[in-house]
Order: sequence, then structure tokens, then C-alpha cells
Amino acid sequence: MKKLNIALLGLGRIGKIHFRNIAQYFPMATVTAVADPLGGGAFAQQNKQVFFSTDPYEVICRSDVDAVLICTPTSSHAELIEEAIRQKKHIFCEKPMDLSLERTEALTAMAKGNVKLMIGFNRRFDPDFMQAYQSVREGKIGDVQIVKITSRDPGLPPIDYIRNSGGLFMDMAIHDFDMARYIMKKEVVEVFAKGLVVIDPAVADAGDIDTAITTLTFEDGSYAIIDNSRKAVYGYDQRLEIFGSGGMIQVENNLHNRNVLYNESGIHQALPLDFFMDRYSRSYLKEMELFIDALTNGTHMPATGTDAIQATMIAAAAKLSMETGGPVRLEEIKRKSVLTG
Amino acid sequence: MKKLNIALLGLGRIGKIHFRNIAQYFPMATVTAVADPLGGGAFAQQNKQVFFSTDPYEVICRSDVDAVLICTPTSSHAELIEEAIRQKKHIFCEKPMDLSLERTEALTAMAKGNVKLMIGFNRRFDPDFMQAYQSVREGKIGDVQIVKITSRDPGLPPIDYIRNSGGLFMDMAIHDFDMARYIMKKEVVEVFAKGLVVIDPAVADAGDIDTAITTLTFEDGSYAIIDNSRKAVYGYDQRLEIFGSGGMIQVENNLHNRNVLYNESGIHQALPLDFFMDRYSRSYLKEMELFIDALTNGTHMPATGTDAIQATMIAAAAKLSMETGGPVRLEEIKRKSVLTG
Amino acid sequence: MKKLNIALLGLGRIGKIHFRNIAQYFPMATVTAVADPLGGGAFAQQNKQVFFSTDPYEVICRSDVDAVLICTPTSSHAELIEEAIRQKKHIFCEKPMDLSLERTEALTAMAKGNVKLMIGFNRRFDPDFMQAYQSVREGKIGDVQIVKITSRDPGLPPIDYIRNSGGLFMDMAIHDFDMARYIMKKEVVEVFAKGLVVIDPAVADAGDIDTAITTLTFEDGSYAIIDNSRKAVYGYDQRLEIFGSGGMIQVENNLHNRNVLYNESGIHQALPLDFFMDRYSRSYLKEMELFIDALTNGTHMPATGTDAIQATMIAAAAKLSMETGGPVRLEEIKRKSVLTG
Amino acid sequence: MKKLNIALLGLGRIGKIHFRNIAQYFPMATVTAVADPLGGGAFAQQNKQVFFSTDPYEVICRSDVDAVLICTPTSSHAELIEEAIRQKKHIFCEKPMDLSLERTEALTAMAKGNVKLMIGFNRRFDPDFMQAYQSVREGKIGDVQIVKITSRDPGLPPIDYIRNSGGLFMDMAIHDFDMARYIMKKEVVEVFAKGLVVIDPAVADAGDIDTAITTLTFEDGSYAIIDNSRKAVYGYDQRLEIFGSGGMIQVENNLHNRNVLYNESGIHQALPLDFFMDRYSRSYLKEMELFIDALTNGTHMPATGTDAIQATMIAAAAKLSMETGGPVRLEEIKRKSVLTG
Repeated sequence: MKKLNIALLGLGRIGKIHFRNIAQYFPMATVTAVADPLGGGAFAQQNKQVFFSTDPYEVICRSDVDAVLICTPTSSHAELIEEAIRQKKHIFCEKPMDLSLERTEALTAMAKGNVKLMIGFNRRFDPDFMQAYQSVREGKIGDVQIVKITSRDPGLPPIDYIRNSGGLFMDMAIHDFDMARYIMKKEVVEVFAKGLVVIDPAVADAGDIDTAITTLTFEDGSYAIIDNSRKAVYGYDQRLEIFGSGGMIQVENNLHNRNVLYNESGIHQALPLDFFMDRYSRSYLKEMELFIDALTNGTHMPATGTDAIQATMIAAAAKLSMETGGPVRLEEIKRKSVLTG
Repeated sequence: MKKLNIALLGLGRIGKIHFRNIAQYFPMATVTAVADPLGGGAFAQQNKQVFFSTDPYEVICRSDVDAVLICTPTSSHAELIEEAIRQKKHIFCEKPMDLSLERTEALTAMAKGNVKLMIGFNRRFDPDFMQAYQSVREGKIGDVQIVKITSRDPGLPPIDYIRNSGGLFMDMAIHDFDMARYIMKKEVVEVFAKGLVVIDPAVADAGDIDTAITTLTFEDGSYAIIDNSRKAVYGYDQRLEIFGSGGMIQVENNLHNRNVLYNESGIHQALPLDFFMDRYSRSYLKEMELFIDALTNGTHMPATGTDAIQATMIAAAAKLSMETGGPVRLEEIKRKSVLTG
Repeated sequence: MKKLNIALLGLGRIGKIHFRNIAQYFPMATVTAVADPLGGGAFAQQNKQVFFSTDPYEVICRSDVDAVLICTPTSSHAELIEEAIRQKKHIFCEKPMDLSLERTEALTAMAKGNVKLMIGFNRRFDPDFMQAYQSVREGKIGDVQIVKITSRDPGLPPIDYIRNSGGLFMDMAIHDFDMARYIMKKEVVEVFAKGLVVIDPAVADAGDIDTAITTLTFEDGSYAIIDNSRKAVYGYDQRLEIFGSGGMIQVENNLHNRNVLYNESGIHQALPLDFFMDRYSRSYLKEMELFIDALTNGTHMPATGTDAIQATMIAAAAKLSMETGGPVRLEEIKRKSVLTG
Repeated sequence: MKKLNIALLGLGRIGKIHFRNIAQYFPMATVTAVADPLGGGAFAQQNKQVFFSTDPYEVICRSDVDAVLICTPTSSHAELIEEAIRQKKHIFCEKPMDLSLERTEALTAMAKGNVKLMIGFNRRFDPDFMQAYQSVREGKIGDVQIVKITSRDPGLPPIDYIRNSGGLFMDMAIHDFDMARYIMKKEVVEVFAKGLVVIDPAVADAGDIDTAITTLTFEDGSYAIIDNSRKAVYGYDQRLEIFGSGGMIQVENNLHNRNVLYNESGIHQALPLDFFMDRYSRSYLKEMELFIDALTNGTHMPATGTDAIQATMIAAAAKLSMETGGPVRLEEIKRKSVLTG
């Protein structure tokens, strides 16, 4: 069987994770080419069998490339996706495809029927969340009525990052919007969101919020509640609670260790894993497995452009809801998209 | 020191709890008289030193009564409070004072300066929640930004009860609205609520909902999120999570026992206590201690008419929000109350 | 139905617990008489319907007494039991019956066929341990192979107490020896024990140890391991683990509250209940319920003189094992008892 | 800096783990040669840069080999260690060095001053246990008095394996004996062990036991209690509890996932990881890191021949204790070893 040849665009933290995961775990795939503005440096030295370039377009065009992994900064995603589609290369793109809903829709439409496209909503592929998804599908808690997502970062990113991130809803909560849709397997019809700045006034100066509450209403009337904070002093807080007619599932945090200390002042445990690459190391591995599997075995692509569109619409609705003070129907966002698109 | 003489109005489940708690734990107080439509029966036989009557008004008037405990059905609360105020008897009244906000306000105003009035928002006095309150006051989690309250009953009450309860927000969630104000020590300015019927269509026929999500916004922009269900198959789910700039506090459920079973299918624990009188037995005791303490030692009355007014306003706002589909400012409710009152 | 009339001998902490529990929870029984060297004082004032005396023998003889609760210091137990047997009064006696195995055997034999005798091995009646017992009986973990008991006190008792207590094995571990027999429903055949002094050298001066490890071997070859310490700085540590062919049961400590605090330094919970009367409040209630039930309804007496004999033999064997350095067969203790008895 | 060249002897499950870990995580080391009776097969095909042989002696001798990893069956360990010492190659050897205490001592003496020798007591390097070790060293629980080790396998190995394993104490409990010494940082002076067969009579036919209880006494009088079973139906149970004058540390199992399911029958969690290569995956990685570090940076070798000798002596003492029925001093084992050695 022919190996799948992959080009990696962007050799940052996440690009390196994908590179190593493919090398170690997926013998049916190889990274044959890498593009990075810095050219690869020591990494290129250690991987001499791989073609390195500073030009992603050069890499996308290569005949020994079947698929591309787009791990570059967000602002370049759309153009790289377009080029990959033109060159008939399958695509794995880190989220978001683009900050604009219209362009996300256009890219998805462009890919359709031409290449396979997967979006890196990696949290879906965390084994703990996949287990919850599985249990829900097996009917273990009956009909789901309420999903509660706690999603708090361990600290503020640099203000410069915030300024260009698209804002908390588009940059951070979008993972949770995708998670809510994933767990419910239903579409959102209404969004109500509140947001404020309590961590650092510089966030407000950058035009963003750092704390938010979002209520999603699904097509059947069921709900998701999401609370976000850019700073939980106790670490990276990523929990899920799913309540249904037959019971409840909670997904707890993964702690640094499983030691419990009893002393005169109380019972003490270690904090949750606080670095996203530790917390979600297995989800990065799993999403690559599923991407490669979809291309080599024709299995279902597990997070698509449609998912990106829906999550982006919810994020846009959340932002609009916060600004207008009232709930926003997703149809309004769709209509606007059509009008301005 | 003179003993505090107490009259008990209503000898239902909760009335009996107060009677027994006073007899066993509070030597500085005595129940000297009891009114109940059934006259007391066997209970009267076992407590011959107590005066029993079928007429609450006869009991309120007695000269050997310093304070009354109103544990009768909700519909009679307002008139009994009025009579007690007229007779200059201090009052402990089970929640709610009245389903009408106007009357709640009027009764509170009438009591003011005349008698002391405590409302039975018993959950405040649960030791686990009091510990959370205490930790917040001591600054253990810094400035509070988000309170999340999970409040789910183990099963639907009779539909007849629902029909006359004032609805889920007024009957059930009102405890949680009070809890949110208690923990935050701040006032709510806006309410957004969603509700639906998923447990039994008969609930809809009775004009009520059985599942709800409520977002409260406080005066400083912080939030409370409350989710309610009339039926959690795994028991009575009463949890709290408080997130602040310095950390988080979770209050977990109290389980039936502390046994953990490991077998081939998993690790298993007992369910949460599922009967409210078990779950909150200590809160009933504590609220009576504080009521007696306030009357005998002049300490602060810990849950007042003002608390009832505020919780009732939030419940009214939640109902209105659900009906109108948008957030409701508490000021609107106040204004309406003034207009109609 | 005739009420059961009970005399209480000894009005210390534990005597008062039984008095109050009977008054509040067991309408089919009444404490009609109390003996205490101090005469009862304020307690007598508050309970004028009860006969008070400084002389236990006067109380035992009264015709309005059906049963006695012996809650006096250990040194007086044997003589009071004898007198009660002579007077044909049923007996509930706090453990131990006597520090001497021979006398324990003699008293048990003397009671047999004359009066009913229950020994206050209260821990058996803790709801959490009863649940474990029940689960084992229902076969939930198959054949039991290993029982592990953790039993650590929150602090050293006064050295004077230790001097007269019979030693750690007879005074403290005896509860655990009884628990092991209760859970296993089998008899112990061999004991191996180690002990040392690490908390306070004064314990050694008083002829005792403060830390111990005991291995019990049951008749079928299965084991119990017990570790004891007089001082766990984190409170009163009372846990159980039962391992069998079909699984494992753990009984965890009951904590002061169910709050969990997350902050920069970790995840923190409250300590276990540290006062034995809090930790075992429900077991005192349950044992009295079962005692009264056995007398009024003829149910099985749940902790008997035979249990006291067995636990005392194990304690004696543990002491001998520690002294001789090798395992001790229970038969050796029995033989010695016969020889010296 | 020159790379460390490593030869791998034995390409079973554990050999492959070391191979992959070195390739992925340790750029300062390379596996240059592999010996396996089957020659490597597909594995050799995928790693063409590596020299493969069926003869371990050929591999040990190679000039491009600085160190050897001995991952062959136990019976060959001693001869391969001897050859490696003769060839001046540093050694990492899976436990045990040899089933005979005398030979373990002789090999350790032979290595001394010639080559560096590490023994694969991998559990020491599990991050959770290392954290416990670290906390103890930092004085977080004061002076340690009792260590309790629970070590239960998820199922019986093949009877043939048992027949040649050296027995439960030498094969399985030896890990726990090493753990006890590691945590206490003290030497054992006395061993008392009990064992029985309850899982399968075939174990008895093979001359072994399947369930055991061992009490170790350390030089300062403190204790370790170890309970072993070859079959815990709920998975691989690997826990630690350390009790000291200042508190207690518990190391809990690592579960399959962090989902909690609440339904009508209870609260349910996933079982502990049940395959030793999952449970201890990080410990295999860490031990290799420390081995390579010791050779390339001259750091301390963290598990040595002396550790193997001590653990083997404890295992021998445990076996003798079980056979004789009484406690065995480690000095007796040493003396015997000298006599027979």
C-alpha cells in the first residue's frame, strides 16, 4: 500500500507535535516536506530525508505531497487552503479557517467535491471527551437536556495576541461551541452571551473581554451553558457536565499527579495539567490518526468545514448578543452573512 | 434568663422537624403551643405539656407566646404574618412569604420596627454552603466572578402541587436565587431565563416548566448561572461552584454512604442523599438556632423580608424573561410592582 | 405494648449520648433511672421524671428497671454486670467487659440463659461499615481474601489513661479486631503484631506502645491487616478496605464538609471528622436501636459476650506476639486462659 | 558531544519500548545494534540503520556499542551481564539480575569499579511514586512510620511462567520490596510473610502462592505492609500510602478516563489502567532518561546492584518466613548467602 505523503506548513509548537506524532505512530504516512519562514534550522538538520523550504506555496505544489497540514498563523490559513484546493491536496487546517464567516463558507464550498478538509477542533478527540460522547450516543444518560462546559485558561495570552485573535468568542470559546455541538449532535438556534473585563484593563483597551457566560439553545429546546475565563489561577480548567433524562456524565480535569497529601491543614491534591500541549497531547495524536485514516481508508472526516462554519456563526452570534444585550438567533447571522457575503 | 416561648403553626413534615429540634437542642426555647387543622392527634398525646389547637389565630394571641413559626401552606402565610405582627409576635416564616411581590413588600414594611421577621431560606444554613460563604468572605478565592448553582430535584412533585406552586422559578429556583445573592453579597440587576418541559407534558398543561437555565447579572457585572430540573434520576443534586480571581470553591453533594465498590464493570459509589429532609437536616437545625439566637441575644436576623423581596423579584424577572425571550432588568420588576402595588 | 424501662449507669459523655438518643428516637423505651457518682446535677434538674442516685446498685435493683446500660469506667464493668445478672436485668455494656479474658469468659457464661447481654462494639453499627458488611454478605466482592483496617486516633489520650487502659491492643485495636471478625464472619486463628513508640516516650514509660501493625490469619487462611497509631495529625482516620475474588470495597472517612478549594497551591479539602462522638454519632444511635429491638421484639443481639471474648483473646495474642516476636496461635491464649482461669 | 551508542538485547515487549523511547526522546543516544533470537523481522526492515543479529554476544562485543540493555528472559541475565562487564560495556538490566542471591551479589561485585550497572526497578520512576518520594524527602509528612503498598495484578500469568518465575515474592513482590526501601530510604531488618492459594489450585501445583501479606520492619522500627494478589478483577491495583508524624501521602491509581457517570444505580467511574505497559509507560521512559543521563553526564545511577541484592534478600526472607511460619531477620539470609555463596 502506498504511503500518504504529507507536507507540514508551519513549524511552531503545534506543527512539531504533528510532525513527531506522524513519525512515531503512523507508519502509513510520512512528512515529506516542511515549509517554515525560518527554514527549519536544527530541525531540518535532524530530518535530512525531509524537504525544507521557506515557501509554503513551493511545498504545496510538490508532486510528492498528497495532503497538507496548515499550522501557520491564522491570517494565512485562507490563502493556503485555497492554494491547496487548487493543487488538489487534502487539507488539515488548525482552527479557525478564517475569522470571517463569509470566507469560511466560501472555502468550505470550494473544497467540497475537490479535496477532503479537516479542521483541528482537537478537543473533540481528547479521550475523556470522546468517552463522554460515546456514552451519550449509547444512551447512558437518556435524552440530553443540559450541557455545561467550563473552559478557563491558566493565564492571559499577550495583549498583542488578543488584539489579533478575533476576540474571546472567536479565539477561545469557539472550541467550546464546537464541543457543545459535538456532544449534542444538534444545531444551535439561539445564543445569549455576556462578557466583561475583570482580569486586566488592557484587555478592554485591546477591544476584547476576558470573562464570559454563554447560553446556547439547540433546535429541540435543550441548552448548553459555557463559562469562560482567560485566567484560572489554579490552572487550565476544562470540564464538561452532561445532564439527561437518564443521568449525568461529568468529565473531570486531569491532574498533574495522583498524590493526595493529608496534613494538619487539610487534604491536598495537585492542580490540573496547566499547559494545553500536556492537557491535550492525546487529542493531537487522535485527530492526526483520524485524518490519516480518512485519507487512507476512506473513513468519515470527523471535523469539517461545516463544523467550522457553525462554530464561527455561534461565535459571531455571541459577540453580537454581548453587544446588543439580547439573545441572537443564528438565522440572523446566516442572513447577514448572505447579505454581506 | 427567661425562656423564649414559641408557637408552631402547622404540624406537617417541616413543622415537626422544628418542634423536635427545639426540644432536643435549644434549652433556651420551648414550644408552648401548636396549631394544626387536625389538632395534633398522637403528637398531642405525646406532648401533653403543649397547648394544641386547630385555630392558628387562637394560638398566635396567647400571652405565653413570644414568637411564631409559620409552617402552614403558602396560601395562608400572608394572613398569619399580618396577625402575628398585629399581636407583636416575632416571626419565622417558611418561604415564600407570599407569591405576590407586592404583598411580600407590604408585609416586610409592616413588620419593620414592630417585630423581627426571618424567612426560611434554609439552604443558606447548610453547613457546607455556610463554609463556602465563609471562605469567600475570608477572601480565599479573591473577587468572585462566576457562581454556578446546580439544583435538581429527584422527581416531579404532584401536578396539583405544581399548579399552585407559583411555578418553577417561584417555588424551586427561588432557593437558588437566594443562594446566589447570599454567596455574592451583591444585588442582581438583570435576569435571563429559558425554560422548557421535557419530563412530563402534564407540567405544561399545568402552566409550568420542568427544566430551566437562568443567568443572573450582578451590579458589578459578575454572574450567576443556575440550572434547574425537577427530575434527576440519580437523586437530589445540590451543588455550588464559585469562581474568583484567586481560585475556585466547589460544594459537592453529600452521598448516602462513603463506600466505594470496585468490580469488573467499574468503580461505584452511592448516590447523593435524595430526600430534602435528609439532605438539609442540618440546615433546619441551624436556621432555628440562628432565629432563637437573634431573639434571645439580639444577634442579626440572617434571612429577612428584604431577602424574600429580592428573591421574589428575581423569580418574577425570570418568568418574564422566559415569556418575552429577552433579558429583564430588575428595575422593570420594581417599577411594575410600584405601578400595580 | 409495655415500654422498656432502662437504667443508665454512668453519666459521662457516652452515657449522655445514650440518654438523649433514647429520649428522642425510641418511644418504645424510657430511661427511668440514672446512677452517677455526682448525682446528676443540672442534668437531674432538667429530667425530673427520672430517678437519680449516686449508687448504681440501688438503681439496678429497682423494679421499674428492665435493662441497664453500663457506661461507667472499665474497672467497674465486671461487678455491675454480675449484679445486673443477679437482678435479672438485661445488659448493654460499653467495651471492654473486663481487661481479663478469664473474667470476660466467666461473665459471658454467667449471663447465658439468664439475661441478654450486648457489648458496645459501636463501630459495627456505623452506617458506612454496615453497608460494607451488607455488600460482602450479598456477595458483591465474592470470597473475601484480605481486609485492611486503618485505625488512627487524632491524638494521644492522657498518659494516666494509657496507664490504666490495658494497652493499645486491648483499649484501641480491640475495636478493629472486632471489626475484622464482623466483616469476615470468621474466627481468627493466628496473630502477629509489632509495636513501637514514636509519638511520645512517656507512652513507653507507661508500659505501652503508640503505633502498631497486626496481621490476623483467619481459619480459612484469609487475612486482616490492621495498622494503628495514637496520633494522626490530620484527624481521626477510620478506613476499611475489603478485597475479594470479585472486587474490592473501600470505606472512606467522613470529612468535615464537602467543600473543595482550588487555588494556586493545589486542590484542598477539609479533614476527616476528628472527634469520635461526631464520627460515630450514628453508630451510637444504631446500637441502641438494635439493643432495644432485641429486647422488645426478640431480634438477634448483634454484639455479644462471645464477641467480647474473641476480641479480647486477639488483643491478648497481639500483646504476646509483640513481646515474643513471633506469631501467636489463638489456641495458645485459650489454653492459658483455661490454665490460669 | 559524542552520542551514546546502545545495544539492545531482546526485542520483546519491553525491549521495543526502550528502543522507541530512545529513538523519540533521547537525541543524545542511539540504538546501534539489536540482538534477538528471531533476528528482528519486520522491525529490522523498518530500522535499516541498525545492526541486527541473533547472537547477543556478537552484539555486546561491537566497537560501536557503549552500553547494553538486557531485556532477555531472566535465565540469561547473569551470563549477559558477565559478558558485558568483560567487554567493558555499561549495563541496564531488567529485574531480576538473577534468581540466586549469591549470583546477584557476585555480579554486583564484578561490575563495581568496572562498568556502571542499573537495574530496571521501573516503578521507582513512575511520576506519581517519584512525587511521593520527593514529598517525603521534603519532610511533608515528618518522620515516616508506616508504608502500605497495595500491589495486585489484573490476572494470573500462564502457569508455565509462574513455574519459572522464582515465585510470587521473587517475581512480583520484589517490585514492592524495592518500593518500600526506596520510599523509606532505610534498610529492612526483619520480614514476616504469609501466603496462600485462592485463585487457582494450579498455582499450588506449580509450587507457588497467588496471594500474600508481608510485613517489613526497618532498622529504626518503622514498618511496611505489602499485600499482593495475582488477580484483582477490577484491574491493576498499584497504590501506596505513607503515614508519618506530620501527615499522610496516598498515591492513587490512574484510571482509564476521567468520566463520572451518575444514573439510577449509583455513581460510576472507569477502572484503573490494567495493562502494565500503559500503567507504567512513563516509568519506562524515565528510567531510560536517568540511565542515559548517568552515562552521559555522570549523574548518580538511580537503581543499582545493591538495590537488587537487598530486594532479593527480602524476597528470600519472605519465602523463608512463609515456610517457617515465623519472622525472619535479614541477617539470617545474609549469613546463609555467605555460607552457600
